[in-house]
Amino acid sequence: MAHAAELRTAKPRKTGLTMMLDKGLARRAVEDVLEVASDHIDVVKLGWGTALVTGHLESKLSVYRNAGMAVYFGGTLLEYFLIRKDLDGYRKLMDRYKIEMVEVSDGTITIPHAEKIDCIQRLGQEFRVVSEVGRKDEYEPVPPYRWIQMIRAERAAGSEYVITEARESGSGGVCRPSGELRKGLIDEIVHAVDISELMFEAPTASLQSWFINRFGSNVSLGNIQPADVLSVETLRRGLRGDTLLAFLEAKS
Amino acid sequence: MAHAAELRTAKPRKTGLTMMLDKGLARRAVEDVLEVASDHIDVVKLGWGTALVTGHLESKLSVYRNAGMAVYFGGTLLEYFLIRKDLDGYRKLMDRYKIEMVEVSDGTITIPHAEKIDCIQRLGQEFRVVSEVGRKDEYEPVPPYRWIQMIRAERAAGSEYVITEARESGSGGVCRPSGELRKGLIDEIVHAVDISELMFEAPTASLQSWFINRFGSNVSLGNIQPADVLSVETLRRGLRGDTLLAFLEAKS
Amino acid sequence: MAHAAELRTAKPRKTGLTMMLDKGLARRAVEDVLEVASDHIDVVKLGWGTALVTGHLESKLSVYRNAGMAVYFGGTLLEYFLIRKDLDGYRKLMDRYKIEMVEVSDGTITIPHAEKIDCIQRLGQEFRVVSEVGRKDEYEPVPPYRWIQMIRAERAAGSEYVITEARESGSGGVCRPSGELRKGLIDEIVHAVDISELMFEAPTASLQSWFINRFGSNVSLGNIQPADVLSVETLRRGLRGDTLLAFLEAKS
Repeated sequence: MAHAAELRTAKPRKTGLTMMLDKGLARRAVEDVLEVASDHIDVVKLGWGTALVTGHLESKLSVYRNAGMAVYFGGTLLEYFLIRKDLDGYRKLMDRYKIEMVEVSDGTITIPHAEKIDCIQRLGQEFRVVSEVGRKDEYEPVPPYRWIQMIRAERAAGSEYVITEARESGSGGVCRPSGELRKGLIDEIVHAVDISELMFEAPTASLQSWFINRFGSNVSLGNIQPADVLSVETLRRGLRGDTLLAFLEAKS
Repeated sequence: MAHAAELRTAKPRKTGLTMMLDKGLARRAVEDVLEVASDHIDVVKLGWGTALVTGHLESKLSVYRNAGMAVYFGGTLLEYFLIRKDLDGYRKLMDRYKIEMVEVSDGTITIPHAEKIDCIQRLGQEFRVVSEVGRKDEYEPVPPYRWIQMIRAERAAGSEYVITEARESGSGGVCRPSGELRKGLIDEIVHAVDISELMFEAPTASLQSWFINRFGSNVSLGNIQPADVLSVETLRRGLRGDTLLAFLEAKS
Repeated sequence: MAHAAELRTAKPRKTGLTMMLDKGLARRAVEDVLEVASDHIDVVKLGWGTALVTGHLESKLSVYRNAGMAVYFGGTLLEYFLIRKDLDGYRKLMDRYKIEMVEVSDGTITIPHAEKIDCIQRLGQEFRVVSEVGRKDEYEPVPPYRWIQMIRAERAAGSEYVITEARESGSGGVCRPSGELRKGLIDEIVHAVDISELMFEAPTASLQSWFINRFGSNVSLGNIQPADVLSVETLRRGLRGDTLLAFLEAKS
């Protein structure tokens, strides 16, 4: 009998990416997570502006670099520079740390979407670009058609994949203030956009299980905590209770 | 005045065991937790199927082995093999990693209890066996008398101790879907079964405090996170607010 | 344009202190957190009585000492000795580990406030003293005027700063049993007492954001988990979504 693991993509992955959220790991902690989980981490985000306050940042970045791991700063850090109209300052920061990938988001600041698209295009001339849709706060539900428009426009502008926002606290982005996932919204988006162009932030175990049960082993998930990377990988392979039967049924 | 610490059992323990849940620690992280807490860890469970996706697993297992720590795979991994009717495959896996202890559970799969008993007996010929009662999901409250029947049957079949299920999320097993502990169920079980034959999964601080306040320092607790082992030990010794007065009153 | 970071105090700090809660880190984990965050940690509390059950405690304390970091035991440990009328035993413990700072609290035990004041004064002859106000449990809301009286009396007795209690679980101290912060109480206290004399326990991200948005970058916060120190520092500097706009508005 085939095991679900056989259906799982391997690195370098085009689908089924796991983006790990590093909120300030020390160099040794990076070595540790790579020791046990490097096969299951495709890209690393240094959460929001943590990079600017992390001691010995270069030392730890070199560990990621030597492991061939793509690293980018959280979108909030770009927003910090954008709202100060200092995109050049951000470029210099990326150059200084040899960062080759950038996340463009407007989760906190409010800018016209055309400006965000322009930012994606301009940064795309120098860097690999991903973008994020969904606001962190001031919840006013954006209708599905608008999500789809924005995602398509950002992809057309050069975004490798578009990330849907979801906060650690379980609210914001694709979640209601109550923390409940807008499942209908997700289904509308996946109906209109190829799922391989999407990554879903899934900071909690219940979100991780839901996305994997709904879309299979090879859905791309983001904001996975270092300590949860192996757990997410077991969910993808039907090796945890939450997905054990789902995969079995799918294959029998 | 006697301190609660004096009432606490020491390794090797028959009662008051702490089972640590390792969800994928790296070798160095295992060394670290043993450095600060090895006196307070009696047995280690590698959560569900994480062992199958953990890089450099043998290297970390050797750290546990050198410390004389018993290690077993989470019951879900056995269930993964059982539902594929591949018990031999599981035996080979345990042999490969020199695992000498096994958890038999049916938290996710549905099998006749007689089959679970048979599994405990067969594995008991080669390995130390513990078993777990309680389902992770599809909540339909099992009445106390049935819990007690199953626990007794599993003990009679050779289970060293029977573990009651409780999920990290606070639901499943002995907890209601709301996360509330079925305290009456626990009291019924402890009334009918010697508490030294039981281990209670207690993944949250509130469950840990409740069990220790209710049954004393030397209740066996499972699914304790590495970062919480010392906290649980302080609860057992009346060194944290939650149990400070309970022990004092009990002794004065 | 000035960045919020420029407004942030530097070590040695009189305001804007971050007190890190160490619940049993191993020596290497202490080295790691200091590597990435030593500029942002002003004082370290070894949570409640964890110090008494931590293996190789001296080894890790020497790492803090070499980094010039002030360390004290959690107030609950003093309460453990106070209720046994063994203040001398506590003094000996501090001497043994070369601890030069002490937290005086009555979060769990019930003693006349005059006795607490006396304890602050007596310990103040030998040690740096901080004190904590607020009970962990048995919730019966203490009115603001009483909080203010106690804080003033403890400051007058020699407490360097007074800490307001708030539990990890989000209840107790300045929080309602529901977990809701008593914001009116906090405002009353800050109206009556200079904020530089206060430290607020803020174990959760929502509490951290609230205090920083309300009182600015340089409010003193306590019970910050090692993994959250950098996150708190980004909040202080407007480098996370939750405070990004607040600081910008305040300065434009």
